Amino acid sequence: MTAKSVSHADLVKASAADVRAAIRDGSYDGHTAGLAAGKLQCNLAILPERYALDFLRFCQRNPKPCPIVGISDSGNPALPTLGRDIDIRTDVSKYRVFVNGNLDKEVTDITDIWTDDLVTVALGCSFTFENALLRAGIPVRHSETGKNVPMYRSNIDLVPAGRFSGRMVVTMRPIPEAQVAEAREISSRFPQAHGAPIAAGDPAQIGIADLSQPDWGDAVDIRPGEVPVFWACGVTPQNVLLDAGLPICVTHSPGHMLIADVAEDAETTIMKPV
Amino acid sequence: MTAKSVSHADLVKASAADVRAAIRDGSYDGHTAGLAAGKLQCNLAILPERYALDFLRFCQRNPKPCPIVGISDSGNPALPTLGRDIDIRTDVSKYRVFVNGNLDKEVTDITDIWTDDLVTVALGCSFTFENALLRAGIPVRHSETGKNVPMYRSNIDLVPAGRFSGRMVVTMRPIPEAQVAEAREISSRFPQAHGAPIAAGDPAQIGIADLSQPDWGDAVDIRPGEVPVFWACGVTPQNVLLDAGLPICVTHSPGHMLIADVAEDAETTIMKPV
Repeated sequence: MTAKSVSHADLVKASAADVRAAIRDGSYDGHTAGLAAGKLQCNLAILPERYALDFLRFCQRNPKPCPIVGISDSGNPALPTLGRDIDIRTDVSKYRVFVNGNLDKEVTDITDIWTDDLVTVALGCSFTFENALLRAGIPVRHSETGKNVPMYRSNIDLVPAGRFSGRMVVTMRPIPEAQVAEAREISSRFPQAHGAPIAAGDPAQIGIADLSQPDWGDAVDIRPGEVPVFWACGVTPQNVLLDAGLPICVTHSPGHMLIADVAEDAETTIMKPV
Repeated sequence: MTAKSVSHADLVKASAADVRAAIRDGSYDGHTAGLAAGKLQCNLAILPERYALDFLRFCQRNPKPCPIVGISDSGNPALPTLGRDIDIRTDVSKYRVFVNGNLDKEVTDITDIWTDDLVTVALGCSFTFENALLRAGIPVRHSETGKNVPMYRSNIDLVPAGRFSGRMVVTMRPIPEAQVAEAREISSRFPQAHGAPIAAGDPAQIGIADLSQPDWGDAVDIRPGEVPVFWACGVTPQNVLLDAGLPICVTHSPGHMLIADVAEDAETTIMKPV
């Protein structure tokens, strides 16, 4: 943090470009939930070109956990269809760098490890449909209580591609029974952000033994009359990348997403270059 | 045609697998409009692996004309997420083979030219939203009159990727003014099939001089009170592939689509392999 430091509150009403600028110049390195309201936020996977075709196949075959919203040219840190001035080496507030499938470091800039063969794949994020649920008056418990969404390993096999395979990670949000159908309908309008739930009700049906013991994030209360509803989660591709043991790959740190200039409710995630 | 020949009418109520079987064994080589009702039909691009990453980038950046619904492994003629037994070398009723950007031949089987480095990319098709329009009582003029949909070169630049670039080809359907909003709403539910219209009204706004002179397909009447409505067209990627002058690529012949086992209104185009 520098003398220029800005707070999360300072950036809530900022434009996506201004948030990226604050991140880029080192003024902000926090999480991005609620920033640049209304703009698409993205999960990130950066990997060597020789694995990119199989990774794209993997994402296409598993569109609920891995909705592709942007693909860079090889070695090019720009993502012009997502934002006019994005430099993926500097515009995310925290990155995780993995070497041979192990976490090597968590950093705020990857300029020093950038190489000409890296490809960025941006994937949709649940913030998009959570905002839509909130606008419809459907509660999002972990946000209400200042927690991270609970995430669980499911027993749902993913469709493999090349060295990429595994099982789906899911998030859980308790939804009042009377609003489950509406929550399903609303989230189904955002196929670029995990779409409709993949299950609701008994967690055992998807291999989850105990909702009070999430594999990532925080447990949340399920109140009387509420149903646990499960959505595909963007942690899925991160896990799959790890298991693939690539010589190098980079992801965002949880909650530290890439913020695009594209509106989160746009028909497509593509902004036409000027 | 053999002694086993079947007619288009014989296949209207057939399953997708049965239609593919009839095509595969040489019993049927006609167009696929209206066959295996309710199933997803696909545009086809088959190209060498070394161009596949850029072509996928191109499709991702131009999702309206090029909605990706399936990607094969390299050299593998199966597409298990689209259908249980698809063999892309035999299961399309007519193919066009292009060598160095020129049409080399039109055939009903590509087994003899299949190689270990070919990748199949299946793209969504307008049949999907046309069926939804018809169900809602919105007329589809070219179908009513037994014509092919009129297609036009527009002045809309595509977002390039590698050697792939060009301008969008659009289809036009005259829609009664009072039903344009509904047609837009219905087609927007099918992002895997070109989605919402890209323009409506004056064709000059997208660079079309004369609706009576389509670049492909047949001109259709626009009646009093009707508005010409333009959608992105699956001929776009075919044109782009041609212009790219690949040493070899294969597409379906117009109207001779790949029929998948996936329902055309499914939330995703992915069928889980058994």
